[in-house]
Amino acid sequence: MDKRPSDVIVAGISQTPVGEFWDQSIRQLGIEAILDARKDAGGLVPEVLYVGNLLAVSASRQANLGTLLAENAGLRGIEGVTVEAADASGGAALRLAYLAVRSGAVNTAMALGVEKFTDVIGGASEAMLAHMLDADYEAAEGLTPVGLAALLFKRYLLEYEVDRDALAGFPETAHDNASVNPNAMFKYPMRPGVYQQAIVSEDFTLYDVAPYADGAAAVLLTREDCLPVGWDQPRVRLIGSSLVTDTLSIHDRHHPLEWDAARLSVERACRAAGIMPRDVDFFEVHDATTLHTVLSLEAAGFASQGQGWMLGKPETIGLGGQIPITTFGGLKARGNPIGAAGIYQAVEATLQLRGQAGTNQVQGAKLGLIQCLGGMASTAAVHVLAADNG
Amino acid sequence: MDKRPSDVIVAGISQTPVGEFWDQSIRQLGIEAILDARKDAGGLVPEVLYVGNLLAVSASRQANLGTLLAENAGLRGIEGVTVEAADASGGAALRLAYLAVRSGAVNTAMALGVEKFTDVIGGASEAMLAHMLDADYEAAEGLTPVGLAALLFKRYLLEYEVDRDALAGFPETAHDNASVNPNAMFKYPMRPGVYQQAIVSEDFTLYDVAPYADGAAAVLLTREDCLPVGWDQPRVRLIGSSLVTDTLSIHDRHHPLEWDAARLSVERACRAAGIMPRDVDFFEVHDATTLHTVLSLEAAGFASQGQGWMLGKPETIGLGGQIPITTFGGLKARGNPIGAAGIYQAVEATLQLRGQAGTNQVQGAKLGLIQCLGGMASTAAVHVLAADNG
Repeated sequence: MDKRPSDVIVAGISQTPVGEFWDQSIRQLGIEAILDARKDAGGLVPEVLYVGNLLAVSASRQANLGTLLAENAGLRGIEGVTVEAADASGGAALRLAYLAVRSGAVNTAMALGVEKFTDVIGGASEAMLAHMLDADYEAAEGLTPVGLAALLFKRYLLEYEVDRDALAGFPETAHDNASVNPNAMFKYPMRPGVYQQAIVSEDFTLYDVAPYADGAAAVLLTREDCLPVGWDQPRVRLIGSSLVTDTLSIHDRHHPLEWDAARLSVERACRAAGIMPRDVDFFEVHDATTLHTVLSLEAAGFASQGQGWMLGKPETIGLGGQIPITTFGGLKARGNPIGAAGIYQAVEATLQLRGQAGTNQVQGAKLGLIQCLGGMASTAAVHVLAADNG
Repeated sequence: MDKRPSDVIVAGISQTPVGEFWDQSIRQLGIEAILDARKDAGGLVPEVLYVGNLLAVSASRQANLGTLLAENAGLRGIEGVTVEAADASGGAALRLAYLAVRSGAVNTAMALGVEKFTDVIGGASEAMLAHMLDADYEAAEGLTPVGLAALLFKRYLLEYEVDRDALAGFPETAHDNASVNPNAMFKYPMRPGVYQQAIVSEDFTLYDVAPYADGAAAVLLTREDCLPVGWDQPRVRLIGSSLVTDTLSIHDRHHPLEWDAARLSVERACRAAGIMPRDVDFFEVHDATTLHTVLSLEAAGFASQGQGWMLGKPETIGLGGQIPITTFGGLKARGNPIGAAGIYQAVEATLQLRGQAGTNQVQGAKLGLIQCLGGMASTAAVHVLAADNG
């Protein structure tokens, strides 16, 4: 973890609340996040804007968000591109911004995640989300990401002989953390026992699926020598980054419950950062469903295969636990802004490492791991962030 | 133009023919281009795949092409992301691959452009293409990219007092060059006088608009020290790169016929390369319409404002002319594969600089400029490529 001149620093962050914003367009959400992140960065101007987004074409009939949002946020003329990797789009945009700053050809790069989903209802929204699966082999059969996760969840419970009621601790922890996060969609804890009663599809409950929502978040990256004069935020550095793909279809994998990209992405980012996963103070997982949470914890090595479900207890994953996850409520209770999710993770991790997480603070957090997944971990983007104590 | 260790080299290229391929899916087109580029690069394995594409979600209901195509081309586990910037998506993917290799975090990066458009017909296809305009202010009024270009073309003729018949040389040159390009969609010259008779909308003729088409092309980039043993292609280096945005809507510009992003992108890429635009041996323009060709030539400084139309003569833009353009037929006659267009430009420029352009060869070409535009030059990606004589 020696500091190098090429180190990438988080100069600014921002997030809108996550929720159903019928009175705001994707343009408005994006502008708000861009302006707020610039303000947080002491006015720093991004030379590059990478926009992580999945649904703008489907839901808002709008392509070329990079150009649209650069212009509308007063940044006409900068570099602007949309980056898509299913619901890992935010993590992918962060990765590209990281590479751009490291290249030396660019001094400042903003990764924006934005999604405007909730204007679309019913079957049309399911069809849009199914675009992130294999169109010919999965979506054509009527599968959706949540439907596929429900099938795999059933397989998980069966294969490892798990009582589904034992998994309540995952959404309960997320809701506990969201209850004190002003930007969360669900600002309340779950009543005891409600998880067990909320079955909507065989083994899957209402609380096993994160709510798709609207939101925008941004991270402005730069190098030490480009920080603006007078900028005085606690320094947080991006010290490891990876993006790994797996098969798009589940049927092509050697085992449907072993998520190779989720494992390799953690290994590669941690190796780049010179750390072990167990060194981190928290792990922001991509908890699109409880299945995602459990398999991610296993893939990252926090539990053996088939044992990740056992971690779902406050003393393990709570803010004061051994490996805190979903520290601001996660996708489950903060809300799932789809293509923006990976940027929310980076923003929340930065707040933790700056010591600005308020009631959601993981005490003494110095090292954080964030993982953003696309589909059934068909794509996995991982970043390691570190507080600078020097 | 001193060589540096960080120089980015074109290790491999490929292209499929451009046309209407009703028997091939976007998956098949993408796989073919990836495999062929790897073969051309002596088997080199890309660590990264950036896929330039605009329409896969709309036309093929398929997101996450980066993952899908990496896996299907036998590259499971590499980094894979889709890059979108309207019809500048290919140029944007090339830019990101360039930055990735320059970052040092990645040794080999493939920029793939792929588009499968022709399965969709009629109004649905027009609506898809309109996504690249401003949804709220342009597409909502019924504008399409070609419709908007036709209006601007009319304005051009009026403002600069130009006889539209004088522009015939642009499509005629493109068709002449396409007639000997085995990958072109229209492998025939235009009959004399046909341009003047082919009016389809006031001043716009059938020959002023490039045909949207299917196709895939790939470029594999690396650094000198990562070239495979035994690789013996003539070296072509990427020595300048830029991506610049303008307003998305035409109404926000200071003048509808001055394309700032087209100008700035050339200036920045040439400055990075240490050359002047007039030093280049050819200029691959984004000739989506004749308006695009004329305004690009003006923006790049090959003509003054309002005088670009005068360049449309074989002795100026032909293969042996002062500034050859559309050397393989351009979008107009080779065909317009939309989000793949920018990669076709890079492939064709590499063939010119390798001296492998066959009948389309610009004699003695050592330095090439390529420009890929999104919408009405709302996005402009420019690259400078150089033959290595050392």
